[in-house]
Amino acid sequence: MTTALAIDLGGTKVDAALVADDGTIDEASRTRRPTGRDRSAEELADAVREAVRGALAQLPAGAELAGAGIGSAGPIDIPRGAVMPYNLTPWHGGYPLRDLVQELVPDVPVTLRIDGLCITLAEHWVGAARGADDVLGMIVSTGVGGGLILGGHTIPGPTGNAGHIGHIEVAGFDDPCTCGGSGCLEAVASGPNTVRWARERGFEGATGEDLGRAYAAGDGIAVAAVRRAGTAIGRAIASASALLDLEIVAIGGGFANVTPDLFEFIREPIAQRVNSAYVRRVRVVPSMLSGDGPLIGAAALVHRSELVG
Amino acid sequence: MTTALAIDLGGTKVDAALVADDGTIDEASRTRRPTGRDRSAEELADAVREAVRGALAQLPAGAELAGAGIGSAGPIDIPRGAVMPYNLTPWHGGYPLRDLVQELVPDVPVTLRIDGLCITLAEHWVGAARGADDVLGMIVSTGVGGGLILGGHTIPGPTGNAGHIGHIEVAGFDDPCTCGGSGCLEAVASGPNTVRWARERGFEGATGEDLGRAYAAGDGIAVAAVRRAGTAIGRAIASASALLDLEIVAIGGGFANVTPDLFEFIREPIAQRVNSAYVRRVRVVPSMLSGDGPLIGAAALVHRSELVG
Repeated sequence: MTTALAIDLGGTKVDAALVADDGTIDEASRTRRPTGRDRSAEELADAVREAVRGALAQLPAGAELAGAGIGSAGPIDIPRGAVMPYNLTPWHGGYPLRDLVQELVPDVPVTLRIDGLCITLAEHWVGAARGADDVLGMIVSTGVGGGLILGGHTIPGPTGNAGHIGHIEVAGFDDPCTCGGSGCLEAVASGPNTVRWARERGFEGATGEDLGRAYAAGDGIAVAAVRRAGTAIGRAIASASALLDLEIVAIGGGFANVTPDLFEFIREPIAQRVNSAYVRRVRVVPSMLSGDGPLIGAAALVHRSELVG
Repeated sequence: MTTALAIDLGGTKVDAALVADDGTIDEASRTRRPTGRDRSAEELADAVREAVRGALAQLPAGAELAGAGIGSAGPIDIPRGAVMPYNLTPWHGGYPLRDLVQELVPDVPVTLRIDGLCITLAEHWVGAARGADDVLGMIVSTGVGGGLILGGHTIPGPTGNAGHIGHIEVAGFDDPCTCGGSGCLEAVASGPNTVRWARERGFEGATGEDLGRAYAAGDGIAVAAVRRAGTAIGRAIASASALLDLEIVAIGGGFANVTPDLFEFIREPIAQRVNSAYVRRVRVVPSMLSGDGPLIGAAALVHRSELVG
């Protein structure tokens, strides 16, 4: 049994933990520190250091650490080992996170990848995509992100930002997107953007959870909003499958749970590709990961390194 | 110097030739036979056999064949070694083309891939994408196809149909597509669909060449039609780059030559992704291949087999 140090850096917090080579998190080692917009660059670095030290303190005497894996909110820059998450303004120039972690674990390899890729590795290892070689993992939440495993290997892209399905366009939509484009999936179907669309039509709730309750109660606007999001997600998946010949798409994230019906809406536009058998065969399933997916996936960068391109 | 047998199967003809390991085609060996909709399944097979035998007849005595590479119009089915090109109706159930070729060259490996992937291998080997590890090769012609090299290796997809960028959607468009979807790039920006769009607005030409001449003369409808196609192509490339973190896109095919200005229109929507540096950095360039790209790429399946996933 070997152990990996797993780190998950997000816009509001950083988590670190020790993870065994069967994907089990050592609960005693789990350490969380807040990040967020109001922190300086050095305070953010200190938050990571504290989380890492808290996790490492639980490493049993004599136990060997196999390596460290970092999953980070994007964008990232793998050649520089740097991260520049949208929500961590002081790091927008690119903070050398890999080097920071390497200083804390000088004797083992440190691998940095985007969080969407880590989540996809976790689905492939212990989740809904076990046994598949061509996988898109998706998160539909505040934003829409993802990661790719193609031909059994991860596809990070040269800068590390591949998998970002939130910024592929959807026909029939023209919502302006924060990336500068328009009609991007994230602009249409993220949780907040779906709630906003509903509110513009009279919905009075404020959150995805509110929308889910209204959907369950049969509220017409909520049903239309959820259908609209599902259609857009399905269309984007059809595009990605046409381009990549995917076997399976596993979707997690808070808004993916708005209602189980969401997956029916997602599958409809894929089924409409009647003359494209290889697109139509893609399976779209809910994530089987708990909220621990990002940490398990960061650990997979170490324990499943043979898959990591 | 080793030699490969290269075969390019298209909707109207099949080409075969011997190709050296520097990408040079043995002109004396080049053999073409017509295919097309009016032929039976067995007549199509005979056309392939005749083309292959014509090429092999030029193999010098004592020379060693390293292998055979087949590039085929899609769809294809790699696990079955079968092809089912849209324009070859008698083969729609899937014809075992790899086995047919294997019977003619029983002692060497035979590799089947889609033509878009072969063209991308050729751009990467001797064309506009030399030195890049993350490449989308595109053909804009009667249809819109393509192929992918990611992380330095080809991405065929499990069925062999990956790379088909013609069927990713473009925001702001809703043209019905033959695949069953709508707003697909091919439905908007193929040569015939662009000409059709112009004719619906009063353009009196019939071909992409006619449209190119009208564009050069400053015809307002032709300019609008070419701009519309370029915008759609650029938007689709922005989507593909967001998903795949591409370095370079090399575009060939007859309609890519409609005017050099097409590439300016293509680059505009990519530049609009102002908050996505990794998307914006993608280079979009014209193909550097002659019409021999498909044969050179089929030969690359043999001569560059270390790249072929």
